Formats: sequence, C-alpha cells, structure tokens
Amino acid sequence: MTITITAFERSPDGGKGLVRDTRVRWALEEAGLPYEVRLVSFRAMKEAAHLALHPFGQIPTYEEGDLALFETGAIVLHIAERQPGPLFPADANARARAITWMFAALNTIEPPILELVIVKFTEGDKPWKDERLLLVQDRVRARLTQLAARLGDAEWLDGGFSAGDLLMVSVLLRLRSSGLLSEFPSLAAYVARGEARPAYQRAFAAQLAINTAPLAAGWGATPRH
Amino acid sequence: MTITITAFERSPDGGKGLVRDTRVRWALEEAGLPYEVRLVSFRAMKEAAHLALHPFGQIPTYEEGDLALFETGAIVLHIAERQPGPLFPADANARARAITWMFAALNTIEPPILELVIVKFTEGDKPWKDERLLLVQDRVRARLTQLAARLGDAEWLDGGFSAGDLLMVSVLLRLRSSGLLSEFPSLAAYVARGEARPAYQRAFAAQLAINTAPLAAGWGATPRH
Repeated sequence: MTITITAFERSPDGGKGLVRDTRVRWALEEAGLPYEVRLVSFRAMKEAAHLALHPFGQIPTYEEGDLALFETGAIVLHIAERQPGPLFPADANARARAITWMFAALNTIEPPILELVIVKFTEGDKPWKDERLLLVQDRVRARLTQLAARLGDAEWLDGGFSAGDLLMVSVLLRLRSSGLLSEFPSLAAYVARGEARPAYQRAFAAQLAINTAPLAAGWGATPRH
Repeated sequence: MTITITAFERSPDGGKGLVRDTRVRWALEEAGLPYEVRLVSFRAMKEAAHLALHPFGQIPTYEEGDLALFETGAIVLHIAERQPGPLFPADANARARAITWMFAALNTIEPPILELVIVKFTEGDKPWKDERLLLVQDRVRARLTQLAARLGDAEWLDGGFSAGDLLMVSVLLRLRSSGLLSEFPSLAAYVARGEARPAYQRAFAAQLAINTAPLAAGWGATPRH
C-alpha cells in the first residue's frame, strides 16, 4: 500500500528542514519505506478536505490504505512499529525507553523552544518582547542542561540510535539559529551526528527540492522513490 | 512484578487531581493493575537518586522490575500496551489513531494550556501579564474550537474510550478554573464523561487521600491495593 504524507506547498522556513514533515520523511528513510508527498497550500490546510485528515489544520499527515494519522509523534511511532529494525530496539524495555524519549522530545524539550518562536514572531511587535525573550531562553537552557547531563558522553540517548533520537535531534535543530545550541557542545555534536545520518540527508534533500522547485512543478502528488 | 510510581509528597494543586501522577493512576485503574506510590519531596526531586529515574527532575516515574520510565505519555502508552483491553482498541488502525490522540493531547492541546499557567504564575509579576493572558487565551480557544469541531456530538474522540481520551480529558481538566472550558459545552460534557468513569474516580480519590493526609503518614512507599 502506498504511503502518502502531506507537506507545505511552500515551507515557511524556505527549506531549512525545520518543518515537521522532515521528521516523518527522516523516519520513512530510516525505515526504508517508499512514500509519496501531497503538497498543501496554506489556504487548503484550513479547508474541509484537509481538516478531515488533520483536525488542527496542519501538516504532516500520513495515509496508508484505510489508515489516516496526524501528529508527527504518532506517525513516527507508527513507522517505527511497522519497520522496527532501524528505529526501535528489539528488547521490549529498551523500546519503551525509546518511546519515553519520543515523548520527552515533544512534550518536555519542544514546548519552550516553540515559545522562542512565539516571542520572536507572534509577539514580535509587543513591548515585552526583549525581556520575555530572556526568560524563555533561560527556560530552554534549563532543559538543555538537564538533557546534556543525561546524555553525558554517549552517542545516543539510550543505546543505539532510535526514534527517540530522531525526534530529539529534530527538536534541537530548531534551536541552532538562536545560538543556544552552541552553548551546549555535547548537544550540538549530538545533533550533528543525527544530521550526518544518510537517511536524514535524504529527507533533508527531498524537502529542500520541493521548497526550491518552481511552484507549478511542485503541485500535486509527487512520487519520491 | 510490583509497579511503583512516584508522586509529589505534597501536590502543588493541593489534591485537585491536576498533577500528572493522576493520569498514570487513572490508566492503571482502567487497566486494573495494582501499584504502589513512592512520594517525593520537592528537594528530593532535584537530587541524584530521582534524577537517575527522571532526568528532568519531575514526577511521575514508573518502575516495574528492570524497567524505569518517565514522561506521562510514554507511561500511559506502556500501560495501555501491557493491558490493552480498556485503553486500546483491538484493531491495529484504531490503536494507531488512539495513539494519535495521545500525542495531540500532549503536543497540540496542552502547550498553550501550560502557557496559561506560566503567564498567570511564572510571569504573574510582569507588566505584560494581563495583555499576554488575552493572547494565550485566544490560542487556547483556537485549539478548543478545532477539537470541538472534530468531537462533534460523539462520546469519545474515536469510537470507544481509549488512552487518547484519557490524556485529552486530563489535559482539558486543567482549563476548568480558567472558565475557558465552559465556553465549549460539548468539551465540558466530554470532560465530565471522563471524570465520571469509576477508574478516574478511584485515581482522583487516591491522590486526594495523599494530599490531605498528615505528612508523616504519607511518607515512603504507600501500597495502593
């Protein structure tokens, strides 16, 4: 059965790979699963057809036969269960710990990082912007300090590379432009190890190609493999 | 093997059931799994023994033999996989959709709700508090509007009650004191249906008993069943 994901017709980051379809592409590449991409415009994202797939009007979504999923974490988990080798360890306890890191990435590390985006852009014209930016940066630093303490000098968060690392690296990547990541050299090196994986490189190149292609050519379902 | 979770020695909410151990207790009660509770003081949460269990120095944690987990979402998912009947549907696609709602609760609905807490308390002494509160309330309303549209007049989010509803109800519960939940009668009724479940009632009573007991009696591992 064909796997189809959705992505922005034009990504707001211009192809830096920070948008969430890159996480799903990366998981699919690690799993060696071919997929197609349906590009969605900002207008179409808020229309009924897309809202039936994604009630919060976002991307990515995942369709495979009768199954339709949204939420990047759930999609990556589904891919990891469908093709566990590259994304989940064989041992059941190690797998439960990998899932713990998936939730930690999305629920503990990412929220203050998204607040950085909100204070810079959504609240960018507010008089409190500069003072609040310092507060949010400190919230991010507190989490990174704890994460770096746990990672220590290990290569990945718990044994071999897993879907937990895939999401954690993806979340930390968003920090690079803020300068905060480089305050934590071990985390910066961890992110670089993730980016160096061939599957990440393929995922990044695929989203970049769409975001740099002429619009008309990028419209519609685009086979990826 | 004994299941042991951690909870606050004294919950910051005084037993309103808004702290995250209630979610894990609820899942364990739905699954019919007995468990013990180890209470942790605010000081002990930041010490090495607890940080070895939870790198971000929070509760709850979950221990069972050799397995140690943190992150409420991962713990609830583990419980649901261990005892699927009450928390996960039998059909694989329906189970993947239940997991989607778990991530939606924690990653899409909860972050703006937590920002309400931050603006009211962490930033409660800042000059921007009142103006920013209105902005964050509108972010919450936008999500609740989408969620109510998807729920429609259904009882639960996708077929029968699942771990996805357990987390969504738990997240929405935090909104009641803000008055925002009552702006969405169908969501308020959905939350009330969750709270009416016997397993939720047992979980709520168990956390309340600890938070209203004299401190000395509540210290240490307290058998629950």
